Amino acid sequence: MKKIRAAIVGYGNIGHFVLDALQVAPDFEIAGIVRRRVSEVPIELSAYPVVSSLDELKDVDVAILCTPTREVEHFAIKALEKGIRTVDSFDIHTQICDLRKTLDAAAKKYNSVAIISAGWDPGTDSVVRALMEACAPKGITYTNFGPGMSMGHTVAVKAIAGVKAALSMTIPLGTGIHRRMVYIELEEGYTFEEVAHAIKTDNYFAHDETHVMQVESVDALKDMGHGVNMTRKGVSGKTQNQRFEFNMSINNPALTAQVLVCTARAAMLQRPGCYTLIEIPVIDLLYGDRDELVRRLV
Amino acid sequence: MKKIRAAIVGYGNIGHFVLDALQVAPDFEIAGIVRRRVSEVPIELSAYPVVSSLDELKDVDVAILCTPTREVEHFAIKALEKGIRTVDSFDIHTQICDLRKTLDAAAKKYNSVAIISAGWDPGTDSVVRALMEACAPKGITYTNFGPGMSMGHTVAVKAIAGVKAALSMTIPLGTGIHRRMVYIELEEGYTFEEVAHAIKTDNYFAHDETHVMQVESVDALKDMGHGVNMTRKGVSGKTQNQRFEFNMSINNPALTAQVLVCTARAAMLQRPGCYTLIEIPVIDLLYGDRDELVRRLV
Repeated sequence: MKKIRAAIVGYGNIGHFVLDALQVAPDFEIAGIVRRRVSEVPIELSAYPVVSSLDELKDVDVAILCTPTREVEHFAIKALEKGIRTVDSFDIHTQICDLRKTLDAAAKKYNSVAIISAGWDPGTDSVVRALMEACAPKGITYTNFGPGMSMGHTVAVKAIAGVKAALSMTIPLGTGIHRRMVYIELEEGYTFEEVAHAIKTDNYFAHDETHVMQVESVDALKDMGHGVNMTRKGVSGKTQNQRFEFNMSINNPALTAQVLVCTARAAMLQRPGCYTLIEIPVIDLLYGDRDELVRRLV
Repeated sequence: MKKIRAAIVGYGNIGHFVLDALQVAPDFEIAGIVRRRVSEVPIELSAYPVVSSLDELKDVDVAILCTPTREVEHFAIKALEKGIRTVDSFDIHTQICDLRKTLDAAAKKYNSVAIISAGWDPGTDSVVRALMEACAPKGITYTNFGPGMSMGHTVAVKAIAGVKAALSMTIPLGTGIHRRMVYIELEEGYTFEEVAHAIKTDNYFAHDETHVMQVESVDALKDMGHGVNMTRKGVSGKTQNQRFEFNMSINNPALTAQVLVCTARAAMLQRPGCYTLIEIPVIDLLYGDRDELVRRLV
């Protein structure tokens, strides 16, 4: 069996876990890791080429983009231009359609495939949301996140003057309403009151119940666990009160990485263009003989 | 917009609910109903052609097969031969692969599409099962059914000598283990003990905890509610203890019918061949502009 040659582009939190997932996937081999720093190579990468550009890697089938979300478009286009498929976990919900359009044109032009926003939300949660809507076309779906660390909110807190270190936890209150629990270390020369006020009035927090707490060490609180609770109550045909619920309790980057790797597999099977996870068959994510998968899972 | 012309083949429980779902679907029109009895037409069908064969209906795009599961293959092949797409909720798990193979050949030969086993289990549950496995490739999934009426087990009880009427309820005990609660009306000339013994030793029941009860009226107990609880605990990459759960509490035939109608929509978009739900993109099940669906659901 010819293995799928994958490159890891970006080696932060997600990149680490993508390495794990690729190492245990029977149908992949690691073509190499693309990262900014190539001088000090971490011990776990010593068996692989570590380079500063995709061009330096040989026969890459698919690039798994583990860069910050705002750099996804740039790296995706660079890969697609070389005919290399890309997958990413781009997570700015309001910009997904624009990215899809841009990468669709690039993928078609260079006869390649991009699958975007392939983490867990957006990503696998999106598939469940779409499926719930198929089951009950009328109704309301609530996506409740947490408890878990919000990357976006944590970055927003860190940007506020007087904050030395921060952690913003998302706590689900039901019906898509969330509480923000913000833990900060204070910069010298600032009072807790002024910083807490600046956080609570920041656009990221102004609309949610927000509690700010000063702690000795933010690092001591960090845990990569996260969760989701999605519910839909709706109507199938003319029948009311159909109820659906999906729950997860997971290591956040580990799940994102696993979904990315499964999506890289699926990228090998699509026609040129750009897709989100709801636009590809779920079976394409899985390793194994298709008849056997149907027999076992349908 | 040209509407999708659907025929309902078979007008039992599922057929009734398919009529409901088609009537509220904005992109469908009802080409007619195919049933054995065409002399007495129920009032709710008075606006539609009620015929005894698909041949008598005009311009049918897709036939929604609501026949008993064992007749699905026969009716599917008859429709596919005419170039009419088919969808069904064939539910004998062990025979799905064979049916898929047979209908795939027929669909390709006549340039048509069949989507099989498109109810909730097999069906939408299968999509969730496949998705959970993508999220955590190693691990165990348990599908727990109920509480709800099992059609298959009820039919099995009715076949036993001395049973006048029967209802077999499936009660979930967790980890895929189920209790069978069997309610029967007794035929004259039989003792409860002999009939209960025959039920408990029947192949359908011998391996499960089974309780048999005699009641005055089985009909008074009947309720079409059903449910499912699916769980997976598994490994994403090398990260253990990732947990996933899917729950439903639903009107059984109403959900089956809604999934069939959404699948009929999807059948319009596939290339010739036979598919199960895990083999088609979830977005194809949904009505609406695709960009808008991606914007709203991803």
